[in-house]
Formats: sequence, structure tokens, C-alpha cells
Amino acid sequence: MADTRLVVAGASGRMGQTLIRLIAETPGVVLSGAIERPGAPAVGQDSGKVAGLEPNGVLITDDPLSLLTAAEGIIDFTAPSATVELAALAAQMRIVHVIGTTGLSKEDFARLKAASRHAVIVQSGNMSLGVNLLAAVVKRVARSLDEDFDIEILEMHHNRKVDAPSGTALLLGQAAADGRGIDLDGHSDRVRDGHTGAREKGHIGFATLRGGTVVGEHTVIFASEGERIEFAHKAESRVIFAKGALKAAIWGFGRKPGYYSMADVLGLAEL
Amino acid sequence: MADTRLVVAGASGRMGQTLIRLIAETPGVVLSGAIERPGAPAVGQDSGKVAGLEPNGVLITDDPLSLLTAAEGIIDFTAPSATVELAALAAQMRIVHVIGTTGLSKEDFARLKAASRHAVIVQSGNMSLGVNLLAAVVKRVARSLDEDFDIEILEMHHNRKVDAPSGTALLLGQAAADGRGIDLDGHSDRVRDGHTGAREKGHIGFATLRGGTVVGEHTVIFASEGERIEFAHKAESRVIFAKGALKAAIWGFGRKPGYYSMADVLGLAEL
Amino acid sequence: MADTRLVVAGASGRMGQTLIRLIAETPGVVLSGAIERPGAPAVGQDSGKVAGLEPNGVLITDDPLSLLTAAEGIIDFTAPSATVELAALAAQMRIVHVIGTTGLSKEDFARLKAASRHAVIVQSGNMSLGVNLLAAVVKRVARSLDEDFDIEILEMHHNRKVDAPSGTALLLGQAAADGRGIDLDGHSDRVRDGHTGAREKGHIGFATLRGGTVVGEHTVIFASEGERIEFAHKAESRVIFAKGALKAAIWGFGRKPGYYSMADVLGLAEL
Amino acid sequence: MADTRLVVAGASGRMGQTLIRLIAETPGVVLSGAIERPGAPAVGQDSGKVAGLEPNGVLITDDPLSLLTAAEGIIDFTAPSATVELAALAAQMRIVHVIGTTGLSKEDFARLKAASRHAVIVQSGNMSLGVNLLAAVVKRVARSLDEDFDIEILEMHHNRKVDAPSGTALLLGQAAADGRGIDLDGHSDRVRDGHTGAREKGHIGFATLRGGTVVGEHTVIFASEGERIEFAHKAESRVIFAKGALKAAIWGFGRKPGYYSMADVLGLAEL
Repeated sequence: MADTRLVVAGASGRMGQTLIRLIAETPGVVLSGAIERPGAPAVGQDSGKVAGLEPNGVLITDDPLSLLTAAEGIIDFTAPSATVELAALAAQMRIVHVIGTTGLSKEDFARLKAASRHAVIVQSGNMSLGVNLLAAVVKRVARSLDEDFDIEILEMHHNRKVDAPSGTALLLGQAAADGRGIDLDGHSDRVRDGHTGAREKGHIGFATLRGGTVVGEHTVIFASEGERIEFAHKAESRVIFAKGALKAAIWGFGRKPGYYSMADVLGLAEL
Repeated sequence: MADTRLVVAGASGRMGQTLIRLIAETPGVVLSGAIERPGAPAVGQDSGKVAGLEPNGVLITDDPLSLLTAAEGIIDFTAPSATVELAALAAQMRIVHVIGTTGLSKEDFARLKAASRHAVIVQSGNMSLGVNLLAAVVKRVARSLDEDFDIEILEMHHNRKVDAPSGTALLLGQAAADGRGIDLDGHSDRVRDGHTGAREKGHIGFATLRGGTVVGEHTVIFASEGERIEFAHKAESRVIFAKGALKAAIWGFGRKPGYYSMADVLGLAEL
Repeated sequence: MADTRLVVAGASGRMGQTLIRLIAETPGVVLSGAIERPGAPAVGQDSGKVAGLEPNGVLITDDPLSLLTAAEGIIDFTAPSATVELAALAAQMRIVHVIGTTGLSKEDFARLKAASRHAVIVQSGNMSLGVNLLAAVVKRVARSLDEDFDIEILEMHHNRKVDAPSGTALLLGQAAADGRGIDLDGHSDRVRDGHTGAREKGHIGFATLRGGTVVGEHTVIFASEGERIEFAHKAESRVIFAKGALKAAIWGFGRKPGYYSMADVLGLAEL
Repeated sequence: MADTRLVVAGASGRMGQTLIRLIAETPGVVLSGAIERPGAPAVGQDSGKVAGLEPNGVLITDDPLSLLTAAEGIIDFTAPSATVELAALAAQMRIVHVIGTTGLSKEDFARLKAASRHAVIVQSGNMSLGVNLLAAVVKRVARSLDEDFDIEILEMHHNRKVDAPSGTALLLGQAAADGRGIDLDGHSDRVRDGHTGAREKGHIGFATLRGGTVVGEHTVIFASEGERIEFAHKAESRVIFAKGALKAAIWGFGRKPGYYSMADVLGLAEL
């Protein structure tokens, strides 16, 4: 069987380079195209060389149209406007579009949903297998355990992160709230300082650590009388986001058009 | 609605006393009887007093028959021979029988299964909600993740424990092996010392810590390139086993006869 | 050699009872007296029976004077006013006074210091060996590591605790600040929520978890580029405070009068 | 003040390249020479280019003599025979020699000691600040805590590691044994499987986890009745070994000749 042809968008960015290296070492897939935005310095350069490999003959282009005609999928960690445009093209070509782009607006989501009538779209706010698996498990467990179990979410990231709690911590909090059937905003303890009073039953607590160069660690704790259950994810490297995206692309080939999550890719959507 | 009447077997043992105290403080249930083996010193004494409470008027008896006639359920952390006998009586009365007894033989299990045609039997090697939940999750996750994820099981117990790995660590290992569809015995790394060579892919590793008075901590690690997912249970007190058993009893009332696990009680059997 | 005679103040309280049971099972020491405040219901009762033991013949009294005359030491988890008064008596008798009382004012401290000219006073905000050892280590390590190491303090306690961070977390933060030679108040990050900006170099961060029945867990993290060093204490039971106090009392016998800390008892004061 | 001139031995190896990059971005030091063994393919090449930087004009040579004449220090992660030879030259030039080479024999150590009469030699089996700090702390704590505290050492490394426990775990075990004044070999529990019996008091236990790509995590646990104290180190990247070595070199400049450890560099030798 011929290798599956993949296009990488944002080819000269950090995630794009990582994806190009990953595809080069993965059997069964081949890099058939590399895209950058018009005017990017890397346009016209060899995408292998840009990624720190030997030249691979795939030049970076700013014209996605012809590339997507000859591809079976595209992986895309770029910006919302580019992503929406690429989704429309993916729908035209009826191919797989894996989206790790963040900062998407409601309107962007609506356009991606529309494109998914003809394209196989896989989209997630965090592309790592581990975090998506954790979210599915947390949602399911929160459904089984009642309010006697206090839910707490702890995260640690490097000292340059500028917001708290992390987007992934909130994603996990949302999964817990969904499982329990409550509204997260109305049941969050995000600050504890001074005289707080006893913990309010049914709330979900967040705690944030910052230091060093930690890529990202998240722990969801269910604590009850005499026992604790803890679910944790530890990211050592940003390569896991590229790996998750590539797994999603391979999973998507030959699937019927639709809007999928990483939980679908992992077979955990029905959990 | 009248309180549900519960009998405690092994009433003067550590778990029996804990159950009597727990029932006394739980609304909706009432202690209707307390059993000990014939000849036990506690026979004839007040079961509340034995458990460190005020006298409750329920005298400990060695004759289960009349007690079970007037009860809706029995909780039993005793010995295999007593448990098998009580299951037969529970079947006769068509009531709930919660079994935390350990050391059951294949023959014992066969007799419990037979009794479950008429009794609602809930049985587990570890009655805590948390450990059973963890086992269900681990089995499900092991089904989703391939051999790129190395599975490791770590446990810590107090310094008087005489075997390793703990029964619960092996139960978790079995859950992981079941999920992955492999035979545990043929895929276990139970000793690592000296020149071991690289880790064999697909194996499940065990590591054991012993020290102090730790009641029991278990962690199942799924480690892959660049990320780890960890599932942990921390027991602070043995009360959690009594709580799990009582929850199982309450869950069982009015259910149709059958042989159930704690995964059923938790609604996680289908995971 | 005759057993060392110890008096327990606050004999019918939770810590008092724990101390009475601990002394009963410790060779080389003997309970020679038990005190309660005037009017306490336990006055006149047998202190062994109050502590859940067999009667020991030591009746609880509200008159410390005669007891201290015949003792070599007193252990005291009571209230500031009682503690100050007992310290004066301990100075008169030139005996050991171990103080686990919390909420002491500056004035109280001044009076304890005065008493320590004639009494051997050992006082700490947390009597466990482990926490005091941790504080000594944290102070020493903070002296060796520069600001490239971000210091974070994480604590978890049960869901009924009404303040945050815990007193012990602040004690550990103070130890870190002392080691580094900075003012804690001016360098604390106690709240992180929303857009925080990057972590400020040299600050000490606090994070708080609340849930279940956790007795108390504290972790001090030193995080730098590519590595983390973590120092943690996990309390399973409040018995450790009694044990630390008893160890302090035994350490104090025959020592020259003075004001000592648990770091002195552990031989870590000079660290 | 002029920048301090440093030579890197093993310049084209993984640690050599990391050191060259690190020196390039560290103010106050400058790369004055780069050495490889005779016949190495990198000899004659530009050391900056080999390390993935822009060319820096420092060509890799196989002749250390002239380089060391013009340098104030050398950092060396090579092989024992090269290290011994370089130490002799460092002694001749009376400069700093930082040694991260492993596998040194007793005879090698004797020759390094001899060289340290004239050279400032800093040598350690693990060059990270964190691990050396941990070892110093563990030794000190083990001196303060008696056998009521069970000592356990847990480590986790990637799935390609071929020996267990890790050299660093054994280094930490040795530190604990030294602090307690016992012989490590006679007091180690390195295997626990099946019926082990209760833990032997005074022993030091080891447990090993293997999985994924974990760079290296070590935890030393002191567990007693009701409490645990844990000291952990988590390495995220091998850069920390280069950083420790560079810190040692900077520390060594202007110091009087001698044989130093990383504990000296950290100011923790007297702990």
C-alpha cells in the first residue's frame, strides 16, 4: 500500500518542524507538502532542511490549493484565520484536517462544523493522547462518585506561563463538572487565601504551581473520608502534541466526514 | 419508609466493630443483628458496647438463622467456611449478602455462585470504592493504549506486611492485563536487580515500598515517549472497606438475585 | 534508674489523652500527674480511664503546684494563659516544660523566654519531628541555592480546615525566606488566578488543596532549569505531635535551662 | 575583567556539545579550546558548528597541551584513560579540572588524587546540583533520625536503561548509610517478591520503575509511625549535568589545589 500523503501547515514553526521530523521517522506516512503563510521567510526553502533534517525535496509554499489536491490529510497548528480557510479547502478535497490551533472563536467553530460535512475534522484544545484520555476518565469517574468526593485540580508549569489556572486544568475541570452534571463557573474555588471557611461541598478546587521549566503536569484528585483517588498527566516534551496530531490523522483516513474529538480517536468518547 | 435491617457477621472483629459504628451513624439503615462464630467470647454481649458505643440492645449471637429471617441484608468479613454457609442462608431468605471475606477457594466461589441464583451477592477482594474504581479505569485505559505505553505498578505498605507485591497491586495488574488482552503471569517484571537489560515491551512491572504505618498506596503508571499518565489510590484508614461494603448493601436492596462486583455497585462494570 | 515522672496538662483533651496513652506504652517514663483547668468535667476522674485505658490511679486535678513539685517535666497542649502560668511554675521547679500550645502572643513569648532562665523550655508551632526536620532542611537548602531556583510550597488538608495556607506551610515559607535572607511578606505569591504575568524571580509561591480527611501534607519545591528538588512531609495521624512532644521532654531532662526549639531536639539547629 | 577561558574535552560528544552551547550563552566565560581523541572524525572541524551553533573559530584539536597552557580550566566528560592524562596536564598548568567521567577505577582515583596536589579537581558521579544537594541532605537527615524511620529509595528511568537500581539510587543509599553509620551492602533490601516476611528494621530498601523516556527521578523516603518525610529529585533534561559542571568550574577558579566534590561547590560538605 502506498504511504499516506500528509501536508503540514505552519511548516517552519516549532510544531511544524516537529511534525516534519516525526512524519519522516513514521512508517506508512509521507510528507507531501509544507505550507507557510504568504510572506513568511521560509517560503521557497526546503522543509526538511528547515526542520533540521537532510533536504527532502519538499519546498515550503504559500499556496495550499494544489498541495491539498494531492494529499490525504493536513495537520494544522497555525492561527484561526488560516485554519478556517484550510478547513474549507479540506472539505472541498474531502480529506482529513487535524486542528491543534488554539484561540478559535465561536464563529470559527461554526465554520469548522460546516466544513466537517465534507471533511474529516479532528480538533482539540490539547492534542496529547494523555490529557485527552485523562479528561475522558475524569468525566466518567465524576459521573460515578457523589459529592462525598471533593474534586481538586492541581497543575504545575514553567515560570514564564502568564495565566492561571492553565487551559488544560480548566479543560479537566470542565470534564469533571460535565460528569457530575454541574456548572463549572458556579462551582469553582479558584482562590484560597486567609480565612476561607470550610470547603464548600460540591465545589471543584484549583491550585497552581509555577517554577523552573516544567512542560506541564496536571493532577485531578477525588478525596473522600479515608481515601483519595488521583489521576495525573505529566508532559516531558512538546513532541507529544505532534504525536497526538499524527495519530489523529492516521485514525481519520477513510473515516466518514464529521467533527471528531481526540476522545473519538482514542475510542473513549462513549465512556 | 422503615430503615433497612442489616446483620453484621464477625461482629466482634475489627471490621465487624467498624461496621457496627458505621451503621449506627448512617441514616436509613439499622443494625438488626450481630453474629459471631459459636464459642467466641463476645457471644451474648451487647454489640454496641463491644464496638465502643453505648449499648444498643442487639446481643451478639451464634445463631444466624433467626436473624436473617428478619433482615434485608448481611455484611460479612469472616472466614470462607462461614461465608459459604451464610450465602446458603441468604439464598434461602432471598436477601443481600455482601462478602469481603478473603482466601476463598474455587470451590467456595462455585458455592457462592450457586447461592446467587436466589441471593443478591456482592463480592470483592478489596471493598474500597476507590480501588475498585481504579481497577475499572485501568482496565479500560489499558484497552485504549497500545504497547508504546509501558505499564508499571507501584505500591507502598507498612513495614509489617509480609508479602509483595500486595494483593491489590496484583488485582490492578490483572485489570491492566485484561484490558490489554494479555496473560499477566507471562508478562510480569516482578524483580529488577543488577544487569536487567532494557525493559521488555508489553510487560507489566511491579515495584514495592515498605515502611512506617502506611495503610496502602497504589499507583498505576502508563509511560510513553514524552508523557506519563498515572492513576493512584491512597488509603488513609481501613474504614473505607466498611464504607464500601455498606454502600454495596444499600445498592443491593431490591435488586434481582445475582453475583455482583463492586464495579457493578459503582456503575462501572460496562466501562 | 527510676522512670522519669511526667505531668500532662490538658489531660482530657484530644492531645492530652493521646499523650497519656503514649506515655503508658513508652519505657523509661511514667505519668505522675494529670491536669485540667478548674471546672473541667474531667477533674477528679481517673486519667487512664479518660484516655480509654484501664484505670491508672492518677486522678485529674486542677492544682498543678503539688504535681510539678514531684515531677521532672510537663507536656502542655493547652491555651496561652494556662501555658504562661505553667511556665512560671516550671521555672520555680527548674523542670522541663514542653509547649505545643498555639496562638501565643508576643507578650506570652516574652514571659516564656523569662521562664526559660530557670526552666528547660521546648516550644514549637508544630511538634512533629518530620515537619521540624523539613523546616531545618529547607532553610539550609534555601541558603545554598540562588534565585534560579523558584521556591513553591504546596499543602493539602481535610475539607473542614478554615484557613489557607496552613500555619505549617507558612512556617516552611518562613524557613525558606530565612535561608535565602529575604522578607517573606514582601516575596509571597499567595494568589494566582487569571492573567498573572510571568512568575516573579525570587518570590515564594503557595498553593492550597482541600479535600477529604487528609491530616496534612506539605511539599516544598525548588524548581530550576531542567530539574526539581522536592521536600515533603506526610502526616497520617495526629499521634506524631504527641510523639514529638514526648521526645522533646526526654531530650530535655538534665539539660541546662534555656529556650529550645524542635530543631535543637533533632540536633539540626546548627544546620 | 577578562572572561575566564575554558577548554571542553570530548567536544563532539553529546555532553561536549551541550557544554559548548552553554558556555556560549554564559557571561564571564569563553570557550578557548575544544579537544577530541586522536582520530575522531570531528578533529579539525569548527566546534561551534559541531554543536549546532554558528561557527566560533575554535577548531577541535587532538592536542590538549597547547590549549591547556592558555586556559584556566577544563571540563571533561570523556573516558577514564583520557581523564587521567588530562588531570596530569591540569596539574602541570595548575588549573581547574572538572570531571564528570564515569567508570573510574581505584587506580584512576589514586592518580586523580595525586594530580590534585597541583590542580583544582572537582569530581562527581552525578554532576547535577540537585542530586548532590539531595545526597548531602539525606546523609545529614539519616544522621538525625534513628531506626524507627524506615529508609526507602525509589527511582524511575526510561525503558532503555539496562541496570537497576540506578547508580544515583545507590549513591543516595550510600549517603543514607553513611549518615546512619552502617554498611550499605549488609543492610540493603534490593528484591521483594513473594513471601518476604516483615521489613527488617534498619535496612534500606530499593524499588525500581522503568518506562517511557523518563530522564531520571529519585525519591528517598523516611517512613515512621504516622509520618513520612520524602526527598526527591526530578531531572527533566541532561543539560543539568553540563550546568553543574560549569558551575563547578567557575567555583574552582582561584581556589587552592585540592580534590573537591560537588558538595564542596554547593557549600554543603560540612552539613
